[in-house]
Amino acid sequence: MADFEVNRITIIGLGLIGGSLGLALKASGRRDLEVIGHDRERAVEVRAAQVGAIDRGEHNLPRAVERSHLVIIATPILAIREVMEQVAPYLPEGCIVSDTGSTKALVMQWAEELLPPTVHFIGGHPMAGRERQGIDQAEAGLFADSAYVVIPSLPADEGAVGALLGIIGLIGAHPLFLDASEHDRYVAAISHLPLILSASLFTLVRSSPAWPDLAALAASAFRDLTRLASGDPQMSRDICLTNRDAILHWIDRMAAELQRYRQLVAGDDEELLRLFVQAQADRDEFLAKGPPARPSGRQPPDIRQEITSSLLGGALVQRMRSLRRMREKGQGR
Amino acid sequence: MADFEVNRITIIGLGLIGGSLGLALKASGRRDLEVIGHDRERAVEVRAAQVGAIDRGEHNLPRAVERSHLVIIATPILAIREVMEQVAPYLPEGCIVSDTGSTKALVMQWAEELLPPTVHFIGGHPMAGRERQGIDQAEAGLFADSAYVVIPSLPADEGAVGALLGIIGLIGAHPLFLDASEHDRYVAAISHLPLILSASLFTLVRSSPAWPDLAALAASAFRDLTRLASGDPQMSRDICLTNRDAILHWIDRMAAELQRYRQLVAGDDEELLRLFVQAQADRDEFLAKGPPARPSGRQPPDIRQEITSSLLGGALVQRMRSLRRMREKGQGR
Repeated sequence: MADFEVNRITIIGLGLIGGSLGLALKASGRRDLEVIGHDRERAVEVRAAQVGAIDRGEHNLPRAVERSHLVIIATPILAIREVMEQVAPYLPEGCIVSDTGSTKALVMQWAEELLPPTVHFIGGHPMAGRERQGIDQAEAGLFADSAYVVIPSLPADEGAVGALLGIIGLIGAHPLFLDASEHDRYVAAISHLPLILSASLFTLVRSSPAWPDLAALAASAFRDLTRLASGDPQMSRDICLTNRDAILHWIDRMAAELQRYRQLVAGDDEELLRLFVQAQADRDEFLAKGPPARPSGRQPPDIRQEITSSLLGGALVQRMRSLRRMREKGQGR
Repeated sequence: MADFEVNRITIIGLGLIGGSLGLALKASGRRDLEVIGHDRERAVEVRAAQVGAIDRGEHNLPRAVERSHLVIIATPILAIREVMEQVAPYLPEGCIVSDTGSTKALVMQWAEELLPPTVHFIGGHPMAGRERQGIDQAEAGLFADSAYVVIPSLPADEGAVGALLGIIGLIGAHPLFLDASEHDRYVAAISHLPLILSASLFTLVRSSPAWPDLAALAASAFRDLTRLASGDPQMSRDICLTNRDAILHWIDRMAAELQRYRQLVAGDDEELLRLFVQAQADRDEFLAKGPPARPSGRQPPDIRQEITSSLLGGALVQRMRSLRRMREKGQGR
């Protein structure tokens, strides 16, 4: 396992996520860290520098990555492919490359196809966000105590993975190892289905002829449940486009669950009460547990310790071991 | 129209809503207002007095109402009927009676059957709440800037309605006149369907064998969308029991809307994008409008002015006029 020093980071795409990454890194207290920012729009680079999310903008994409230790692609999903194509020839040897896309199987595939074998690609997905996008929404605390999915590509060096874990620790998140298809199925359940439900609840009620009265009546329940309908439409569309099968699967399961509730509402109050009681108890337990404890707070973690110990219990340790075996086999080819 | 002075208010049921009503009234600056509280549990009365939600508890229900100008029943829905039966013989002549139940058609029917003709029943539903119940969750600001549905019974005097509007103004809410069946259909869309969706999303995802990993991944989207699953189970069941038909109607419409999204996710990205764009624009407009302006802030409103002028635009003025005509006819019988 090679040693990886990360002193220069390039963030490509300075929206809510890219901007918040920069702010979190600059707030982390690692004074030796240089953060270079690139955005499709030069004005966004200027703004990102103004708010302190980056040390400087670099509108020439090859120059933005040419001496970087870690390149994080934080663009909309469909643009990740394009960025990979554009930067591939200019990535320094041994550079770590990551992304923040909401779906991962296609991203891992693009990385394998497009990036040179001299770089270490590790897919990433910070499980944080909000419905408002853009650099002006960015904040340093966005990732605090949230999960950050890490999906090492087969050829990625373990030292590179450890270096990325260090960065994830710096921004206050806790890493969570998954494989790409697992990730995509899981986020379909806990992010993409909620998005579809939120949007469809809103468009359904909005289409009612009684909408003006409904809007006047609507309290926090309706506002909270429809929050995701205010998300970036293109991001929502990209998610559906790149995770279609898993989303369809969960829509079908949701439709069936809704029918189960329908039957109970129609005719079985007792069972309905039992269901509500169980849901309340289970959700209270879910909330009480909170995110898994981070082993090392805001200090740069001991990467060897962190990568070889359990981050999330047995299942993930198994998964990491098999990932490592896969990686070792990959390197042995 | 008679003159109604409201100096003594009895709140029956000192949970989140009853307790918050008391706190809001005590915080309103009307020093001459005496608030008497009754709860099934004596300890809750004691607690309510401790936190300043009531001036004093009165565990004897007849004594709690015997000299009251306004009795507000803030119990769970199914208990409202029972309370009406119990207090009916003891309500002073000319007393205003209201409730805070989440469904209204049955409540209006119970009032007609059970309350003496010498009192003025006006159904009420403050459109505010949260998933945590009980006196310790109560707060004075719960109703600030939220809608408060007002449903006068046919025999209720216009002066009594005006007096209740004054109280609603005192707690910072703005009144909204609806008839009971309209109310129940509307809240099925904006409160009860969200409740069913929230609970069913939670129980669906919770039932997955991958739940431990899903829980570790879950970010704000899942937490916010499932918030209502933490609500009081009995309240949720009572809502379903007393508003069954309207809820079934909206579940069916939701199922159809979900199928519409399913088709677009499966095969029409362009139309899907259009849908997300429209949803975002419409929801932004909905949020920007906010609640309708209150004409008189925290000052006691001019009740004659308020009851004869538009509270929410044309449709409601019409509705109020026809309500008043109905009431006049009712009084002329």
